[in-house]
Amino acid sequence: MDRIYETSLLLDFYGQLLTDRQYAILDLYYNNDYSLGEIAENFGISRQGVYDYIKRSRDILKKFEDKLGLVHRFVTNIEKARKAQELLRKIDTSVLNDEDRKRIECVEGIIEELINEKD
Amino acid sequence: MDRIYETSLLLDFYGQLLTDRQYAILDLYYNNDYSLGEIAENFGISRQGVYDYIKRSRDILKKFEDKLGLVHRFVTNIEKARKAQELLRKIDTSVLNDEDRKRIECVEGIIEELINEKD
Repeated sequence: MDRIYETSLLLDFYGQLLTDRQYAILDLYYNNDYSLGEIAENFGISRQGVYDYIKRSRDILKKFEDKLGLVHRFVTNIEKARKAQELLRKIDTSVLNDEDRKRIECVEGIIEELINEKD
Repeated sequence: MDRIYETSLLLDFYGQLLTDRQYAILDLYYNNDYSLGEIAENFGISRQGVYDYIKRSRDILKKFEDKLGLVHRFVTNIEKARKAQELLRKIDTSVLNDEDRKRIECVEGIIEELINEKD
């Protein structure tokens, strides 16, 4: 898992356990692609200050994940759902009656929702 | 959601944020059906003491859920997966070729895993 995606998930799962300021800075950096310099300017602190802030906040999130493992669980489930999605897409549904074809479409929609829950 | 199921989920999601003793007592009470009296005897404290302990520990778990809402999210996903399971079971797969029938079975298996993740 790449670092940005991982931190974005950590923030989504445990972000409410951070202070508002910690959350805001991580959100700008990892979800909104702000640079250290831009954040530094916005918050009136040094670039190094922002860097330390991000590192500390990220460490807090990682400690929660080390204890609870809920992001790991989530990622595992998403992988399973993707596998199901892939299988469903391969099925030749043209032989099914209308009702059953709609059922497959509906299942595909549900799986799509499960996969995109975090977007 | 009934209280026992709810607490069992809360414990499963956030239990690692409790002390070992808090976790052990809640686990005995909610997951292993011990009575207050039995727990009191095991831990050498009063029944009222156990009751207070359970209440306090449950409050801690609920505070985490109020902030993070991860149990709620999980329950919503399970409901979706159950709906998908129900739809798949209604499909007449006899018209499909062997390969596609196996795909449907495989998807059913994956959905079953998602639903039972917490067992």
